[in-house]
Amino acid sequence: MSDLVTFGETMLRLSPPDERRLEDADEFEVLAGGAESNVAIAAQRLGMPATWLSKVPESPLGRRVVSELRGYGIDTDVVWSHRGRQGTYYLERAGTPRGTKVIYDRDDTAFATAEAREFDVDRVQNARVFFTTGITPALSSTLRDTTASMLKAARQGGTTTAFDFNYRRKLWSPEEAEETLTKLFPGIDVLVIAARDARSVLGFEGDPRQLAHKLGSQYEFETVVVTRGSEGAIGWHDSVVHEQGAYETDTVSKIGTGDAFTGAFIARRVSGDDVPTALEYAAATAALKRTIPGDVALVSEEEVEAVVSSGGEELSR
Amino acid sequence: MSDLVTFGETMLRLSPPDERRLEDADEFEVLAGGAESNVAIAAQRLGMPATWLSKVPESPLGRRVVSELRGYGIDTDVVWSHRGRQGTYYLERAGTPRGTKVIYDRDDTAFATAEAREFDVDRVQNARVFFTTGITPALSSTLRDTTASMLKAARQGGTTTAFDFNYRRKLWSPEEAEETLTKLFPGIDVLVIAARDARSVLGFEGDPRQLAHKLGSQYEFETVVVTRGSEGAIGWHDSVVHEQGAYETDTVSKIGTGDAFTGAFIARRVSGDDVPTALEYAAATAALKRTIPGDVALVSEEEVEAVVSSGGEELSR
Amino acid sequence: MSDLVTFGETMLRLSPPDERRLEDADEFEVLAGGAESNVAIAAQRLGMPATWLSKVPESPLGRRVVSELRGYGIDTDVVWSHRGRQGTYYLERAGTPRGTKVIYDRDDTAFATAEAREFDVDRVQNARVFFTTGITPALSSTLRDTTASMLKAARQGGTTTAFDFNYRRKLWSPEEAEETLTKLFPGIDVLVIAARDARSVLGFEGDPRQLAHKLGSQYEFETVVVTRGSEGAIGWHDSVVHEQGAYETDTVSKIGTGDAFTGAFIARRVSGDDVPTALEYAAATAALKRTIPGDVALVSEEEVEAVVSSGGEELSR
Amino acid sequence: MSDLVTFGETMLRLSPPDERRLEDADEFEVLAGGAESNVAIAAQRLGMPATWLSKVPESPLGRRVVSELRGYGIDTDVVWSHRGRQGTYYLERAGTPRGTKVIYDRDDTAFATAEAREFDVDRVQNARVFFTTGITPALSSTLRDTTASMLKAARQGGTTTAFDFNYRRKLWSPEEAEETLTKLFPGIDVLVIAARDARSVLGFEGDPRQLAHKLGSQYEFETVVVTRGSEGAIGWHDSVVHEQGAYETDTVSKIGTGDAFTGAFIARRVSGDDVPTALEYAAATAALKRTIPGDVALVSEEEVEAVVSSGGEELSR
Amino acid sequence: MSDLVTFGETMLRLSPPDERRLEDADEFEVLAGGAESNVAIAAQRLGMPATWLSKVPESPLGRRVVSELRGYGIDTDVVWSHRGRQGTYYLERAGTPRGTKVIYDRDDTAFATAEAREFDVDRVQNARVFFTTGITPALSSTLRDTTASMLKAARQGGTTTAFDFNYRRKLWSPEEAEETLTKLFPGIDVLVIAARDARSVLGFEGDPRQLAHKLGSQYEFETVVVTRGSEGAIGWHDSVVHEQGAYETDTVSKIGTGDAFTGAFIARRVSGDDVPTALEYAAATAALKRTIPGDVALVSEEEVEAVVSSGGEELSR
Amino acid sequence: MSDLVTFGETMLRLSPPDERRLEDADEFEVLAGGAESNVAIAAQRLGMPATWLSKVPESPLGRRVVSELRGYGIDTDVVWSHRGRQGTYYLERAGTPRGTKVIYDRDDTAFATAEAREFDVDRVQNARVFFTTGITPALSSTLRDTTASMLKAARQGGTTTAFDFNYRRKLWSPEEAEETLTKLFPGIDVLVIAARDARSVLGFEGDPRQLAHKLGSQYEFETVVVTRGSEGAIGWHDSVVHEQGAYETDTVSKIGTGDAFTGAFIARRVSGDDVPTALEYAAATAALKRTIPGDVALVSEEEVEAVVSSGGEELSR
Repeated sequence: MSDLVTFGETMLRLSPPDERRLEDADEFEVLAGGAESNVAIAAQRLGMPATWLSKVPESPLGRRVVSELRGYGIDTDVVWSHRGRQGTYYLERAGTPRGTKVIYDRDDTAFATAEAREFDVDRVQNARVFFTTGITPALSSTLRDTTASMLKAARQGGTTTAFDFNYRRKLWSPEEAEETLTKLFPGIDVLVIAARDARSVLGFEGDPRQLAHKLGSQYEFETVVVTRGSEGAIGWHDSVVHEQGAYETDTVSKIGTGDAFTGAFIARRVSGDDVPTALEYAAATAALKRTIPGDVALVSEEEVEAVVSSGGEELSR
Repeated sequence: MSDLVTFGETMLRLSPPDERRLEDADEFEVLAGGAESNVAIAAQRLGMPATWLSKVPESPLGRRVVSELRGYGIDTDVVWSHRGRQGTYYLERAGTPRGTKVIYDRDDTAFATAEAREFDVDRVQNARVFFTTGITPALSSTLRDTTASMLKAARQGGTTTAFDFNYRRKLWSPEEAEETLTKLFPGIDVLVIAARDARSVLGFEGDPRQLAHKLGSQYEFETVVVTRGSEGAIGWHDSVVHEQGAYETDTVSKIGTGDAFTGAFIARRVSGDDVPTALEYAAATAALKRTIPGDVALVSEEEVEAVVSSGGEELSR
Repeated sequence: MSDLVTFGETMLRLSPPDERRLEDADEFEVLAGGAESNVAIAAQRLGMPATWLSKVPESPLGRRVVSELRGYGIDTDVVWSHRGRQGTYYLERAGTPRGTKVIYDRDDTAFATAEAREFDVDRVQNARVFFTTGITPALSSTLRDTTASMLKAARQGGTTTAFDFNYRRKLWSPEEAEETLTKLFPGIDVLVIAARDARSVLGFEGDPRQLAHKLGSQYEFETVVVTRGSEGAIGWHDSVVHEQGAYETDTVSKIGTGDAFTGAFIARRVSGDDVPTALEYAAATAALKRTIPGDVALVSEEEVEAVVSSGGEELSR
Repeated sequence: MSDLVTFGETMLRLSPPDERRLEDADEFEVLAGGAESNVAIAAQRLGMPATWLSKVPESPLGRRVVSELRGYGIDTDVVWSHRGRQGTYYLERAGTPRGTKVIYDRDDTAFATAEAREFDVDRVQNARVFFTTGITPALSSTLRDTTASMLKAARQGGTTTAFDFNYRRKLWSPEEAEETLTKLFPGIDVLVIAARDARSVLGFEGDPRQLAHKLGSQYEFETVVVTRGSEGAIGWHDSVVHEQGAYETDTVSKIGTGDAFTGAFIARRVSGDDVPTALEYAAATAALKRTIPGDVALVSEEEVEAVVSSGGEELSR
Repeated sequence: MSDLVTFGETMLRLSPPDERRLEDADEFEVLAGGAESNVAIAAQRLGMPATWLSKVPESPLGRRVVSELRGYGIDTDVVWSHRGRQGTYYLERAGTPRGTKVIYDRDDTAFATAEAREFDVDRVQNARVFFTTGITPALSSTLRDTTASMLKAARQGGTTTAFDFNYRRKLWSPEEAEETLTKLFPGIDVLVIAARDARSVLGFEGDPRQLAHKLGSQYEFETVVVTRGSEGAIGWHDSVVHEQGAYETDTVSKIGTGDAFTGAFIARRVSGDDVPTALEYAAATAALKRTIPGDVALVSEEEVEAVVSSGGEELSR
Repeated sequence: MSDLVTFGETMLRLSPPDERRLEDADEFEVLAGGAESNVAIAAQRLGMPATWLSKVPESPLGRRVVSELRGYGIDTDVVWSHRGRQGTYYLERAGTPRGTKVIYDRDDTAFATAEAREFDVDRVQNARVFFTTGITPALSSTLRDTTASMLKAARQGGTTTAFDFNYRRKLWSPEEAEETLTKLFPGIDVLVIAARDARSVLGFEGDPRQLAHKLGSQYEFETVVVTRGSEGAIGWHDSVVHEQGAYETDTVSKIGTGDAFTGAFIARRVSGDDVPTALEYAAATAALKRTIPGDVALVSEEEVEAVVSSGGEELSR
């Protein structure tokens, strides 16, 4: 049985090479991309056996996604569906001022029809941590119920629940997100949230330390992590606020940085680290992720430890 | 104004390199693929100015498709839509016994919502030939009406109507196809149909010569072309049947062979060739197409003539 | 009829991948590259229908160039020639201190024989703007006459004439360039010129504002734009000087930045913008261009507007 | 617990693109290649849960191999070693008369040190079938003992033992192979052997039917399969000989054909098929394999059934 | 000092991947291609030290060509020129009926200006064989003189002269070729000529055996080799005619087959083989060449011997 | 005869594209990589004829390495061995904090068995400079003797001996390196050493100027060059210390920077430059190298001179 079970959709990610434009593309790089599987992989890499739970079309495209995730070392426990599409998205990379763009093509997916009763509740209840994100309930009304049911089942089984707020403006409005996600908050032990989402979706104000404290107090979370991109993160736990900076990186791909952070944080917390130490490992994992193409933190525990102990200097060859 | 106007959907075609499996793909080749645009390109290459009419999402993916078609030299006259997906399909190439496989992902497209009133009727009525295929009405009930309306408008404008039966079993059942398409027959002057579709969808029997004759007589077409793959084609016109063999080829890509044949046949007929001569040029164009990667007949008129006059020997360097 | 007609040579551009050396190259990326077609494309992207006029060999290489340009959305109106080569150039990319290198292989081209009488004068006289650059008359003595004739025809037809000085030291000496190009100045309404060319070829002195003013006054241009690379540009019009900075960019390819700037400037001026506003859009278009591989500004009007209104911040995904 | 456990070395396979020569290669395609993992994958694809047992260096190269195998869907149960190399081989593809060439670089590997006590004997004893090949004992004297021990343990646990003779002349002489492998025969239930190996290594004579019968009788195997490349295979069981032809294929890669055959045969036998039926599915799986690039039978059970039921015709799209 | 000295132009060969059309190409594969360097390489591979003599522009493109040839193992002795282009050609591969096409872009090259006095006559006179082809004098009037001078110098130095007729219709008419090349015949010891050139350019009639005999007798060659493509070759020597078949091959690239044949024939003759044996090795080298991408016979002497001794069966792995 | 002879191992270098991880690689770029051949190439590029001496397996892999080096323009004089592997290494590129990683797979190579008597001592004694590095004696005890013998032979022949200390911690401990290499010092005229190696392996202290002086005085070298990465280098000669800064670069590949520096320094010293001038050219060559992918300084003498005379500004196109 895995220590961590995550639940979510992983899409086929199609992207032109380098910074080529979609409208001018002759080929697409094909990868699997999804926040919840990214978190599972990062945790597994830091030594926490992890399983990704999902519903996937029984098709070459569905198998393509699952095959890649298995190759990264996690367990995959999927409901194979004979109805519904495989979600895809198109990614166009660019720097300032163009900016990286994402086009979702994820309507009518198999995953959007996933109901809690299709999954083995024991998987969730025997895990130490259950994790999903705010993307999941944004995908369909069915998934709003499913998310709520699974968080409830986890809580009943004594499994810690962790949740990344992950607001996506291409999926729903801030108002819809707020209404849906705050309803889930009572069932969540550990909340990860970007400072900008706390402000623009939940309407909190103040500096990130204040945001963390207000969120933690108001909703009685066990732990709150407020992420701030290149400025690091804040951890709130037992009413104490801990600050963690971000390491310098030669960034190759930003995508998946937050998921690497979250997966590592969960793994280290479960292995017994206190919050400041877990934040440090999370920041180191995130930094390593940024040097790796693709969305996934293909790191080793030794590398993460080396970054922490060297304070982020380039590891020698 | 173009001499040929074609109407249909052109999809984004995604395919792994060589014979790699979709479930194992790390990259996709990206091309535009659609029967009606293929026919327009083949006709244009043989000297008949051609326009492709369609409805396409106003998105990088939609622009990607239109840009490729323009590059092939035809005119594109598209309604840009702010709703609906860009149709895509996944192509997995393979030989015997695996066989090439196609996965359509073309539900809820912008094109499926195309109505006749969105297009400029003058475009159709000022052309010499209007062409579409049995794929178009298979895509939505809206498109069944649209197809009927456009054929009607063409007829009213004195434009010759040409139609490729093109039955696709992944889109509808033989029964649905038969019911829908035979209703369109009275508005069609030139019918192109594969012998196997005439048998399995329309229930005709007999050898291809008989099929052509029965079809032509029963539905009062002006011209019927029955295609037989590597065995060539039959042309029926004025109650006379003409037989055309297929040229030997070193085949690189079969896809689009039929469209190359049809486009060339139309172009040569309009330029004044009799049916047997037009069939010969059509067969030569189809043969050249098979030596070219992708779906499109990127040939020149000189090459086609050289094949016809050499009887299909390899052109010298 | 197009609002903008540009006239010039577009070469086949061959370049090794990344920063590989030509002498070590195993493959070349193939693109079409030419200042006048780049300007047409940039203008078209900003909403100004544009046509590129040229003379091209009737060969697969000539068709290759025309096909790519059509794919970018502009109209191409070319004289197909049975004599003369397709111009090519080899591009080797490199940073400091090696520097990007260009090897021209553009002698004896079809374009070098282009005479004014081969083109439809109505195309030019019915356009709102006619554009060419200082590269064109540098290519052959025939083209010096042709350039003069076409500028004259444009002026006679009431078409605004725009000209990018574009001195190329691999084509001719500063003295030849000065003598030839200043003779064309009386026929030009809008001059675009790099500050360094104004100094080293035309012998002007002073800061860019002074350069613009001296040029404008001395030759009685309607408008002068002096470009300064990463330091922005100066616009002179009605004896008033306007200064425009350059936006910060994550640069992927510098080539074509000036052409993007010029094309956008022309398009916005024609659409009614005053000089400062047109300069602002031109700078935004140039900034977006630098994030895009290749020579061409594959931007949308919305993107340009977003850069202008955000002041150049990275556009969100 | 898996129904099939296989034991062997899987190498990193490095090959130039297409038919390029090694001495002229600028890039290598990277794949994992090994007979025992190939067999596990083929069996898993036909519905038999399979595990690959091995010893692998704890290095990025070792992880590379394991990651690929996991992605194909089998379980991997490996001893991670801090000593010994990752075996590699270089593959140069070519047709007649050059012929495909293999250069092994597999001395001093981690796998060569694998001892039986390092593996969990329960894994083997709880499986329904244990499988290895004649390559394994050819790799080191340690592995000769290990192979014998594991076959013995399997037998003791009531697990069926299957063995592919797989003589490799680059690893040892026919005399060494004969001496070593015939000693293992008493512990083997199902032997797969190429007709040419039966002749040139074991010195048997006669046609393949006779070879199968002599082998089966002399060594008291439960089942013998004699493979004959493009001429099919012979199955001997209960003193009855069954003949199976090979399907026609458009071959893309021959490598792994035998492993696909063997894996499918084992899976079908265990699922209850009689020998002739299992041979038919084995032949169909082998035929599909030949249409797939790489060494691995990335097939589905449905596809194999379709080939069997259609008699090997190209599956329609 | 090399035993073989060849003299000729080697071009930069640019070709789209696979069978893609030039007009649709996004990238070109870059190789060096020239008959005389191909012959030198084939001879060197069969153990005869060889030097390629040429005149090349001092530019990255010229260095590119020389670097590739050196990498193949021959010596290069080139005059570096500061004037003249690097010859290039575009190659579009295709099967029946399209056929492979070549577009030469080799006017005004550095090589076309090569004069005999620019080369070290000792190089030629100290070699055992001097070789050039009918392409060289076709390139410029200067080269006609140069070819004659070098053949004369070779003869004076006691060096055997070998010559491949190699008629290229894109360079000159049959009449020009006949007039020029027959003038060179008295200075040539060994003539290689395609049967079709002997017929269509020189006007000989009869079967290949007769062609060889008539040519040899009329022009008093020491040896004549008449090549017949896939039907093999005829050797004529001392008034005796020897016939050599062609080996079966899985052909990957036909280009350079004749050069491989000629280079091997020369090398084996010089090493003491009689004509029939040399023809056999030549045919084996040609067969191996056809399994290798590109123009060059990257074979080893062992491989050639293995083909000869096995009679052309696929070499085992 | 070459002016410079270098002796060392050149490995096959296998690296995933861009910053991809080895454990996730689908393809490897293949290059030849070795310090001593790099130095030979850099010297040759600056006008000093150079030969690389080595022992290489007679295999496609060995030929692959030699072929690439010949293509770069140097002479290769290798002992072809029928025993021993071709050394390889895997390179994984990454920026901060991951850092570029190297995995050596160079045990049991052909080169490790190279003895002095296998090489032609005249080659070394007729050269002006003999060069090897501290990597060579680290590879086997045989090579320790061979290195000593060759340095001795060079000294006896009046050939200047140059040596790059090049400590590699993956090959031996600092203690072993110190003991072995300092024994070679009396036979060395010109020592190149990184400041960090002088400190951590040899135990010297002080700033780089002091290191150079102490090393030079203590071991009586003729010349010492202390390299300091991006901070430049120190040259010590005739008891005078010269300081040279590093040029600014847009770095594409750092690997081989030191070798480019050393090769250029040797070439310029031999051509008569004083130490400060040679250091300046060395720094310019190193700067150009960093703009070039791969390990090798594919520069021209003109480019190096242009960098020196421009003080390192980007060379104009």
